Amino acid sequence: MAEELRIIALGGYGEVGKNLTVVEYGEDLLVIDVGVAFPNVDMLGVELLLPDFAYLRENAARVRGIILTHGHEDHIGGVPFLLREVRIPVYGTRLTLGLLRGKMEELTSAPLPPLHEVAPGDRLSLGPFTVDLIRVNHSIPDGVALGVHTPAGLIVHSGDFKFDYTPIDGQLTDFAQFAHLGQEGVLALIADTTNVGRTGFTPSERMVGETFAHLFPQAPRRIIVALFASHLHRIQQVCEVAARQGRKVVPIGRSMERCVRIALELGYLRVEPDILVPQEALARYRDEDLVLLTTGGQGEPLSALVRMARGEHRQLEIHEGDTVIISATPIPGNETMVWRTINDLFRRGAEVIYYPHAQVHVSGHASREEIKLLFNLLRPQYTVPFHGEYRHLVAYADLAEEMGLPRDNVFLLENGDVLTLSATKAAVTERVSADTFTVEGTKVQRIVPAVLRERQELAESGVVLVAVTVDSRMGTLVAGPEITARGWLGEEAELGELLAAARLRVKQALARFSPRELQDPTLIANRLRNVLTRYFHRHTHFHPLVVPLTLETERQL
Amino acid sequence: MAEELRIIALGGYGEVGKNLTVVEYGEDLLVIDVGVAFPNVDMLGVELLLPDFAYLRENAARVRGIILTHGHEDHIGGVPFLLREVRIPVYGTRLTLGLLRGKMEELTSAPLPPLHEVAPGDRLSLGPFTVDLIRVNHSIPDGVALGVHTPAGLIVHSGDFKFDYTPIDGQLTDFAQFAHLGQEGVLALIADTTNVGRTGFTPSERMVGETFAHLFPQAPRRIIVALFASHLHRIQQVCEVAARQGRKVVPIGRSMERCVRIALELGYLRVEPDILVPQEALARYRDEDLVLLTTGGQGEPLSALVRMARGEHRQLEIHEGDTVIISATPIPGNETMVWRTINDLFRRGAEVIYYPHAQVHVSGHASREEIKLLFNLLRPQYTVPFHGEYRHLVAYADLAEEMGLPRDNVFLLENGDVLTLSATKAAVTERVSADTFTVEGTKVQRIVPAVLRERQELAESGVVLVAVTVDSRMGTLVAGPEITARGWLGEEAELGELLAAARLRVKQALARFSPRELQDPTLIANRLRNVLTRYFHRHTHFHPLVVPLTLETERQL
Repeated sequence: MAEELRIIALGGYGEVGKNLTVVEYGEDLLVIDVGVAFPNVDMLGVELLLPDFAYLRENAARVRGIILTHGHEDHIGGVPFLLREVRIPVYGTRLTLGLLRGKMEELTSAPLPPLHEVAPGDRLSLGPFTVDLIRVNHSIPDGVALGVHTPAGLIVHSGDFKFDYTPIDGQLTDFAQFAHLGQEGVLALIADTTNVGRTGFTPSERMVGETFAHLFPQAPRRIIVALFASHLHRIQQVCEVAARQGRKVVPIGRSMERCVRIALELGYLRVEPDILVPQEALARYRDEDLVLLTTGGQGEPLSALVRMARGEHRQLEIHEGDTVIISATPIPGNETMVWRTINDLFRRGAEVIYYPHAQVHVSGHASREEIKLLFNLLRPQYTVPFHGEYRHLVAYADLAEEMGLPRDNVFLLENGDVLTLSATKAAVTERVSADTFTVEGTKVQRIVPAVLRERQELAESGVVLVAVTVDSRMGTLVAGPEITARGWLGEEAELGELLAAARLRVKQALARFSPRELQDPTLIANRLRNVLTRYFHRHTHFHPLVVPLTLETERQL
Repeated sequence: MAEELRIIALGGYGEVGKNLTVVEYGEDLLVIDVGVAFPNVDMLGVELLLPDFAYLRENAARVRGIILTHGHEDHIGGVPFLLREVRIPVYGTRLTLGLLRGKMEELTSAPLPPLHEVAPGDRLSLGPFTVDLIRVNHSIPDGVALGVHTPAGLIVHSGDFKFDYTPIDGQLTDFAQFAHLGQEGVLALIADTTNVGRTGFTPSERMVGETFAHLFPQAPRRIIVALFASHLHRIQQVCEVAARQGRKVVPIGRSMERCVRIALELGYLRVEPDILVPQEALARYRDEDLVLLTTGGQGEPLSALVRMARGEHRQLEIHEGDTVIISATPIPGNETMVWRTINDLFRRGAEVIYYPHAQVHVSGHASREEIKLLFNLLRPQYTVPFHGEYRHLVAYADLAEEMGLPRDNVFLLENGDVLTLSATKAAVTERVSADTFTVEGTKVQRIVPAVLRERQELAESGVVLVAVTVDSRMGTLVAGPEITARGWLGEEAELGELLAAARLRVKQALARFSPRELQDPTLIANRLRNVLTRYFHRHTHFHPLVVPLTLETERQL
């Protein structure tokens, strides 16, 4: 009897980010990508989001390997966290591993685990899995899709992809290999749906270079290009256009410097000598001879661009006449921060050029016609959309139906769903643990909605602390009440008056307590909370979080 | 000698919302619009933003009136707050005053101030100002632009406008009046720049009706249309298409019911009898005979649509087969909430139709070609853009320059700027107080960035409270330390352990205090804060806000 073939959706299904897919055949597991996501604005205090590693932890001995499709954070950022818990070999292309290595060295001083370099076009054998690495185009070099051959059928995972017919590095998508797999017969396609809502084809990255070639000569002084540090094709184009115009290119900030250094070392950036200049040497050049490369295209508060826009950067200022090119579009949720940054730059007298007013950005993800082309090259029996919000998964299902696939053969998996497949049927048969985990400080923990709600409440209403000391054997008051507040109301004088009045109110309440009641710290705390909550609501319509503390003299040192 | 003519930018300049413009001639002031804005996500706990009323308060006796251009919140929402402080006559068209009246009755039981109804085409005389009310089209009926004639020249304020050549109510923009004013000679044009970034013309509202006519017959069960409650032209179209199809229309929620009621009373909604049905009667109709009208097109957490999408509405549920039309596009900052709502609706099995996948929304603001047409009808000597972020103001300046106006004749005012004008020159001559004020609970106050930062800090890191009681005459410890925490970390057990260890650490620190030190509550508080901040950082990498309270036995009751 054939073993079961299962696709386990652990991250990136019905959401964008922290991608993690498992293909399981019989006793063996193959992990595809282990990403992180960035928190929503309402996840106060959370630095990063991680997928749930429980299933991988429980089945660690059965995992044959982790294969990484490309080097973006939402695909590799979770690897260091997973490898803290389990030891699994990691496979990836040269740049992907280079970026992962840089990341791991930053996070830990422990020796690195074995990272196995593979190349697009390679075929890997891992237990029962034979994996083809198929070159695709994306907004980072060295990306691959995966063809996972198992005894029960072939599963294709698209990775993050677009079809660029004129790629900057000359590395075309391996259409022949997709066609070949299509002829062999694809049981299931797991497909990137990010841009399923966009009609037509995503333009070639080369278009952005053409825009640069048009814009750079018009810039009277410095040019500042804001883009993702790992977008090496675009950095390559900046360098080429700058070189033609006799400008030097200066990577600004730690992550930009790190990416450029890694890319140079590994051969993913080919620039003429002397074009790249370190930030320390900036002062030696005239403004009109410079192009600055910075992050901050998403309005990230700590990026060099945003600090410059706010006038908070230690070394760099925006000058009248600077040309700032925002070579990115806002990821959903970042819009306000991006517009604010652009407004700030304009206020400082810069000329700001941003999409869609100029073609200074193209997406790294396939639009509808490209998704259709991939689908038609492969003609899968079943398909599973990933890398999209739920609305994108639905749009992909509509698209697959348009191309003739029965609706029942499209599976809108969400994290935790286990899809069991055979040549004759497929069904979601099980759910495994797929919670979201948060990284805060050094701590990784399951997300606790109650704590996030408490934080929101703290933030919106502030907190009032009240403390009182009792002798609980005697049932007498010893000290207090003392009251203080944080994050609440505006002017100090007014707050002082209000708190003084509230303190009086608590005193009156305490005066009515019987000695017996004063022996019960929990009762005292609850009463004080109620008295103050009512008091503040009546006098201010606010609902600060009231936190009472009852101290007891017995518990002294 | 001629008196001075001044434009005072108090709200809506270099920002979107809380619009407030003052035209001042000699001893007389005219106020145009008094709006509110909704807070950014990082303004935790803030309900509304108001413009600064200081200048109006100080000059209340000189104000001849408030003229409202239309009934949207960002133009009328601040009126009730201003009228609490000063008594000024208010002028507006019938619907604008109807909506204002509804609003004021909700906020206060005090008798309403005099509201003077005017009509598009009217000419008002207020002190030295003669004001023409010029009909324009917008996403609410009864909107006007203003031609303010003064002895020193004519100022035109566009209001929020678009040019709809086929308006739903048949009320065309009064092009003739604009042309007439242009011939007369316009000293300054204050122009709506919201959509200056969009090429071409904004489509007619009628297009949305055509989409409804196409979509409604395809819907197998209920249709739910989410839109702004005041968008009466669109509600009119929903009613007409529903009537043709034999469906009833049900306004859901308080604000939708209120707007529909006011519009019916004032004649801004003309529907066949029996088309509108109250929510209570819902159960009497089959799903396929219903259209629900709801707010929530911006993903507002308290709206009926969002509560239905989350399964948290008391009366209404989303069913498989429901068709939800999101007849709006996200206002910047609301994107994440809107996409989340759409995803939730899809997850509940609804068919969700949203822009740009279908033309279920058109803007209420003029695109580039319309702005150019207005400009060319008026050919102003000077111009001031309003109703846009700073990047929009810059784009408008570029546009005005394209049309032949010298760049020096465009004034990118920001709130607080005073532009002094004469036939021969114009310049920003002064700044007046134009802070942002917040509404929280019953309290209106100047925005305090430090409090907002403290809230953010509270929210991100949580708060730890530590209390200790001393006899400060004797310099001895009487009770404590007690420690508790809020909004911090996840699982309670772990937090309990950590706090117990922290308490021990504080005890050790206190044991090393000299009796003299124990007589100083401020010193004790500071030391405890330092000890705990260091302790938590070392053990968790967190920086909770540590709030110490020292109680003293002398201060007991």
